[in-house]
Amino acid sequence: MKRELHINLFVQSRGHHEASWRHPDASPYALSDIAYYRDVAQRAEAGLFDSIFLADTLALMDTVGHAASNWLEPITALGALAMTTERIGLIATASTTYTEPFNLARQFASLDHITGGRVGWNIVTSWLAPAARNFGGTSLVSHDERYERGEEFVQVAKALWDSWADDAVLDDRASGQYARADRIKPINHEGKYYRVAGPLNMPRGPQGRPVFVQAGSSETGRRFAARHAEAVFTAQMEKKTAQAFYADLKALVVAEGRAPDQALVLPGLSPVIASTEAEALRMARGMNDLTDPEVGRKRLSGRFGGHDFSHLPLDKPLAPEDFPDPGTVQAARSRTEVIVGLVKREKFTLRQLLAYLAGARGHFTTAGTPEQIADLIEDWFTDGAADGFNLMPPLLPSMLDVFVAEVIPLLQRRGLFRTAYTGRTLREHFGLARPATAF
Amino acid sequence: MKRELHINLFVQSRGHHEASWRHPDASPYALSDIAYYRDVAQRAEAGLFDSIFLADTLALMDTVGHAASNWLEPITALGALAMTTERIGLIATASTTYTEPFNLARQFASLDHITGGRVGWNIVTSWLAPAARNFGGTSLVSHDERYERGEEFVQVAKALWDSWADDAVLDDRASGQYARADRIKPINHEGKYYRVAGPLNMPRGPQGRPVFVQAGSSETGRRFAARHAEAVFTAQMEKKTAQAFYADLKALVVAEGRAPDQALVLPGLSPVIASTEAEALRMARGMNDLTDPEVGRKRLSGRFGGHDFSHLPLDKPLAPEDFPDPGTVQAARSRTEVIVGLVKREKFTLRQLLAYLAGARGHFTTAGTPEQIADLIEDWFTDGAADGFNLMPPLLPSMLDVFVAEVIPLLQRRGLFRTAYTGRTLREHFGLARPATAF
Repeated sequence: MKRELHINLFVQSRGHHEASWRHPDASPYALSDIAYYRDVAQRAEAGLFDSIFLADTLALMDTVGHAASNWLEPITALGALAMTTERIGLIATASTTYTEPFNLARQFASLDHITGGRVGWNIVTSWLAPAARNFGGTSLVSHDERYERGEEFVQVAKALWDSWADDAVLDDRASGQYARADRIKPINHEGKYYRVAGPLNMPRGPQGRPVFVQAGSSETGRRFAARHAEAVFTAQMEKKTAQAFYADLKALVVAEGRAPDQALVLPGLSPVIASTEAEALRMARGMNDLTDPEVGRKRLSGRFGGHDFSHLPLDKPLAPEDFPDPGTVQAARSRTEVIVGLVKREKFTLRQLLAYLAGARGHFTTAGTPEQIADLIEDWFTDGAADGFNLMPPLLPSMLDVFVAEVIPLLQRRGLFRTAYTGRTLREHFGLARPATAF
Repeated sequence: MKRELHINLFVQSRGHHEASWRHPDASPYALSDIAYYRDVAQRAEAGLFDSIFLADTLALMDTVGHAASNWLEPITALGALAMTTERIGLIATASTTYTEPFNLARQFASLDHITGGRVGWNIVTSWLAPAARNFGGTSLVSHDERYERGEEFVQVAKALWDSWADDAVLDDRASGQYARADRIKPINHEGKYYRVAGPLNMPRGPQGRPVFVQAGSSETGRRFAARHAEAVFTAQMEKKTAQAFYADLKALVVAEGRAPDQALVLPGLSPVIASTEAEALRMARGMNDLTDPEVGRKRLSGRFGGHDFSHLPLDKPLAPEDFPDPGTVQAARSRTEVIVGLVKREKFTLRQLLAYLAGARGHFTTAGTPEQIADLIEDWFTDGAADGFNLMPPLLPSMLDVFVAEVIPLLQRRGLFRTAYTGRTLREHFGLARPATAF
């Protein structure tokens, strides 16, 4: 089968640029209004995207005075979007650290039924220090323990999703037999973190289980992805590191005994698109003019587990010593490594670093014409850097619209992207196998 | 203001009669298909009902071979129903014993935004023994401890829902001020069971918080309802006990310093309706002929915390000694009291008891003409037994349809029920005040 690009729309605030929410061209909807998410989901579906994705955090950011966020809780939002879209996949973040596996497995199985098999789960272990304080803890669970617990959580959830055979429900009115009890089994899990008897109280969903998505790129995160992820979101600042990540991840996937095409690598891509490159760069500058460096400083502090950057002057070149060692950060370790690497390479001042991160929080940003963006996508896709992209429009919906109207047709003409949905489920869009049960 | 009836549709399987799922007239949809719930919700909305309600259990019943259940998880289902209904309230059960208050408060706040203020929470403390085994426990938490924990859970959730002032979000693009940080406050809860810092990471919903519904009628349950519930679902077998319950609950509500009309009493009502009483009775018998006493025996055992009834003959009159003392049952205590009371009063055999419970699990069942049902509703409503009803059609959607087509117009003609929706939120339908914040 011909290899085709996969494109996911990552929906965040009124776009991924930190100042998007206040841009005059950004969506008029409130960020607590489901109409906003319905609107962008329907635009992405019109563009034949594989999926949309809602990220999540479990605490209020202290930047709320001057920065906007998605406010709806992702699982409830996906329930709503299920009824207002027809074909596009719907992916939500949920945490293995702060939920019960029985509840989460059930909500995703329910969404899989409600969406007709279009749901995906972005598995996170929750790196945000303030989140712990909303769940009984006084300090964050360590990076390693989070992943150990996450591993067991996924094992439990998979067992629950496989606890009903696909043919367990008979619903035979004449004989009065509703289900075949011998095709439904308890899981009797007793592990280090969880004891769950099962079975799930729900028939198996259309996809068997949700598509597993993962976005942690630390060493532990990659090993986790190699075992479980069917799609990997990753922040790569340049093609060279993207190629290295791609090769490394696929090798790890193969080492786990899995087929490399069953784990799609989708780097983040945040393009400002205009009819000329000069116009695109002018638009990018216009967005940066709306940012507030103090918001960026707080966000940077959050990324580094609360480290205090308040004493650093904005306009002096940074040194790696200005940052804590990423190895000691109990948060999203891979992103902190990227930032410290960037400081070493680019000799940024704090103001320059914050402006850079304001674009898409460390994901790949670029500005150019539709032709230039299509060329970049084709180049990464054909040269071992990506199986597709996690599209992060800096401004929503305007820069999604221009991508759909101008870039998608170029990719279609080059034979790189679908011209109609051929599948019904997210697994079918992504070319992923439906998992078998133990029955 | 004129006092008006409130009617909630309780959606369960293909109707509340135990054998409804296999009845030839029952809905053709699968019970894992959101189309089924959409269909009945839209029929109830056409009948101008205040709300629909999805109950929940956190474990698979061992009757699954011969009995059907709702399969979708209620919170995800409400997300979907939010987009396929316009005015009707949407109530879901969720447990205070097996969820985290931060997660649950967030999902309900999100649903309140998504529904435009139509969501209600049926607060349960989870009485089912097998549920505990899906959440790390080996035995059920005791009745008293469940309520103590539930009390603290509600306190935390309320504080989270009140952690944003109604005017906290400015979303001012020109000045770059997104929110007024001084109008959002942490809750810093440190109690016996929960430590939650807050604030919630979401603006306050249209209703302030979901409408609180409660269905436990034990003494502890009533005291909990008196403090918190804005609507109470209750199983009453006859008008006399319904009147006593109504008077007792309203007195407890007043003793808590609340207005009695801010806690609606809605007894369950499961009517078989036909053009003649004889025809209605014939239809009721037809449904009973489809039941399986062994399914009923297992359900009875579940109600009594797993007590073994397998040795009891079906056709010998029961004695109270055949049952464990309800005071020792760590499950849904009020319902067990109702059942033992029934055995004392009616001198039922086990077969007769099971047939009785098959109707609507201990709720009030009746069979008659539309006129007779309307008379009964008016009598209970005007004679201190009910503020409205939790309608539990024995068969869905057919016996909902006949209620909407034949009974609702009678109630409207008598001036007892709305002829159009006047409100937009469930609080408005129920005539409930919107809670203030501490700001």
